[in-house]
Amino acid sequence: MISHPEGRGRPHVVIVGAGFGGLYAARALRRAPVDVTVIDRRNHHLFQPLLYQVATAALNPSDIAAPIRKILRWQKNTTVLLADATQVDVERKKVGLTDGEMGYDYLILATGVTDSYFGHEDWAPCAPGLKSIEDALEIRRRVLVAYEAAERTEDPERRSTWLQFVIVGAGPTGVELAGALAEISRRALARDFRNIDPTQARILLLEGLDRVLPTFPPQLSEKARRQLERLGVEVRVQKKVTGVDEEGVSLDDERIEAKTVLWAAGVAASPIAQSLGVPLDRAGRVQVMPDLTIPGRSDVFVIGDLAAFEQDGQLVPGVAPAAIQEARHAAGNITRAVKGKLYVPFRYRDKGMLAVIGRAAAVANLRHLKLSGFIAWLTWVIVHLYLLIGFRNRIIVMFEWAWAYFTYERGARLITGRIDRLKD
Amino acid sequence: MISHPEGRGRPHVVIVGAGFGGLYAARALRRAPVDVTVIDRRNHHLFQPLLYQVATAALNPSDIAAPIRKILRWQKNTTVLLADATQVDVERKKVGLTDGEMGYDYLILATGVTDSYFGHEDWAPCAPGLKSIEDALEIRRRVLVAYEAAERTEDPERRSTWLQFVIVGAGPTGVELAGALAEISRRALARDFRNIDPTQARILLLEGLDRVLPTFPPQLSEKARRQLERLGVEVRVQKKVTGVDEEGVSLDDERIEAKTVLWAAGVAASPIAQSLGVPLDRAGRVQVMPDLTIPGRSDVFVIGDLAAFEQDGQLVPGVAPAAIQEARHAAGNITRAVKGKLYVPFRYRDKGMLAVIGRAAAVANLRHLKLSGFIAWLTWVIVHLYLLIGFRNRIIVMFEWAWAYFTYERGARLITGRIDRLKD
Repeated sequence: MISHPEGRGRPHVVIVGAGFGGLYAARALRRAPVDVTVIDRRNHHLFQPLLYQVATAALNPSDIAAPIRKILRWQKNTTVLLADATQVDVERKKVGLTDGEMGYDYLILATGVTDSYFGHEDWAPCAPGLKSIEDALEIRRRVLVAYEAAERTEDPERRSTWLQFVIVGAGPTGVELAGALAEISRRALARDFRNIDPTQARILLLEGLDRVLPTFPPQLSEKARRQLERLGVEVRVQKKVTGVDEEGVSLDDERIEAKTVLWAAGVAASPIAQSLGVPLDRAGRVQVMPDLTIPGRSDVFVIGDLAAFEQDGQLVPGVAPAAIQEARHAAGNITRAVKGKLYVPFRYRDKGMLAVIGRAAAVANLRHLKLSGFIAWLTWVIVHLYLLIGFRNRIIVMFEWAWAYFTYERGARLITGRIDRLKD
Repeated sequence: MISHPEGRGRPHVVIVGAGFGGLYAARALRRAPVDVTVIDRRNHHLFQPLLYQVATAALNPSDIAAPIRKILRWQKNTTVLLADATQVDVERKKVGLTDGEMGYDYLILATGVTDSYFGHEDWAPCAPGLKSIEDALEIRRRVLVAYEAAERTEDPERRSTWLQFVIVGAGPTGVELAGALAEISRRALARDFRNIDPTQARILLLEGLDRVLPTFPPQLSEKARRQLERLGVEVRVQKKVTGVDEEGVSLDDERIEAKTVLWAAGVAASPIAQSLGVPLDRAGRVQVMPDLTIPGRSDVFVIGDLAAFEQDGQLVPGVAPAAIQEARHAAGNITRAVKGKLYVPFRYRDKGMLAVIGRAAAVANLRHLKLSGFIAWLTWVIVHLYLLIGFRNRIIVMFEWAWAYFTYERGARLITGRIDRLKD
């Protein structure tokens, strides 16, 4: 069904995945003498850093997602295919799809990561993670339904179980979710119920290590913790989750009854990496060479979250700026090769890290600067508006944020999909 | 689980359904000496007249939907419950829910209508209708996937089957969908594909009666048909559908191969009406008395699309203004009864009808005026912005419309949910 675009006489670059890595690689190849095919099983590029805002009813899915083929519309050497790539045959130089295959001269693999439950896959239905739009809408549904169910039940114990929210994992995603949930309960929903007081909802953030935001400097972790607590989030560190079910979470020495548990604790590489036949790290990521190719195959690049790239003894973090830098570097190396030049090694330039906690609350670890509070939050707002793709999306998001800032409202408080979970 | 709010000593009015009928009834009771409970199985009021714009990727769900409890937040005599009402026991004065029951002193039933396939319920999965947000997202998914699948297939016959869209029923919803699909193919998607030319998509609008918009005056039907054809829609009237399956539709004398079939041909009353034990019309609607109660029960009102109200030998149409007028009237009658006064009969004031076809194309049948083209379209835009609930929603929708008007883009081109239908 799918054919290689043959006879054009130019090298064919196949990019699998249109996240930050894949999309920026395609863009970087727009003037290269190659034909590019971008394969993704979604029709949209997702701006994942703002996905938690969809999960917490602040933004709409289409505010942070744009059709891949629209983004690449004017790039004439590039074709976009909606297809699900499942494996790579590096010998035959083919990408296997669920319904066909596609040959390549160069491959850029950028399929990213999914949630990891550390071998407890049965926890997944009870504690959804946050990776796709569907995930975000499911979390939104669960959070909003929890308040509706609490409003309806008369048993005070059940009620407090519905009003207990647990977030497992205090990395940036867990911190963002916890902060947003606290704001929803204390502001957006505060006056909308008759039988319950939403401000009595309890938001519990659990972390296995000894502080929130463990990849940030300790003093910023401390500031983040204080900002979270000011919003009403209960933070507990050095807590290991030993069980998750529909009624709550079990810790080593404690049981917490909660109808809503969200998972932000770990990632596992996309399983397609296993078909490459090269060494993977513990999370299943591909240990790439200094030029971002895989060992023994100079025509296969792995970039973004799927790549484990070590620099100065440290792993480059799984963040958008790293994926974008790697994408541009891989595209540059391919362009060099096509022109008969040698590959050059990649070097990551760390521009800093941001984590947002809530309204006017964030931390920023920039190169020479550590910020927190309003100024860090403003930095976060500006950087994220700047990185968002599409003029229209920027305007809408800017409007939604301004509206939310002044009214404390959430614009997308819809329960869609199943409503059966309401039954207690 | 659910209890009657007893002991308040005021009559308890239960409203089932928070569409135009239910919501405006609740609002009209805000100062009445009663306690009001609004029951809906959704958490949101949906502005159904714009639902086709969600189905055709122009608007986001939350642009046309608002949480019921947020709308009624400041109305202190009113409680909102997320629950699924399945029957009414008029003897015991109770509404049965899937998980409990609720007693009433007065009942306003406003649960509306669903799609009717005229006894062919097996057609439903092949030809979705447009009643809920889930329906709209499913239609959006099917339409966008059809272009993706056409781009991927190499068989020219399959390709044209994917690019054939059939809409069954040329009432306002069918006309709106057909016009919007034509605009998508000719404008929004025109440059985004490499193997197909989206402008070659065929949009076919089928109608069983002898003209489009049969409830409008014949000269406006004729104008609507011409505007549809100008957009590229093929209109065929007096065509009876005898079969629908995954590969197309069968007519009396013809077979049309099409992967995407949409249903806008008929409505059936919400089944809860059957539990009232009163005469229903052919579509299952309740034949109400002049005061909007049901025969023999002065404490049960039926309003909106669920009611069949005859005036001057004609049925009041199933449109939002009729539901709103009936809602206010039913609320008024309840208020009168509580104050010891008699019910008064309802009289529908027809303010006219509007149907939109596309950009700058519409027809309007106002009291002393028949409009078409740009001026009818402008009327439609203003009326619908005015009727939309919520200042925020108005601003967003206004922005989206202005953006679409000048760029011809569609802002919500996301495929979410299953992607398996892609496999040919």
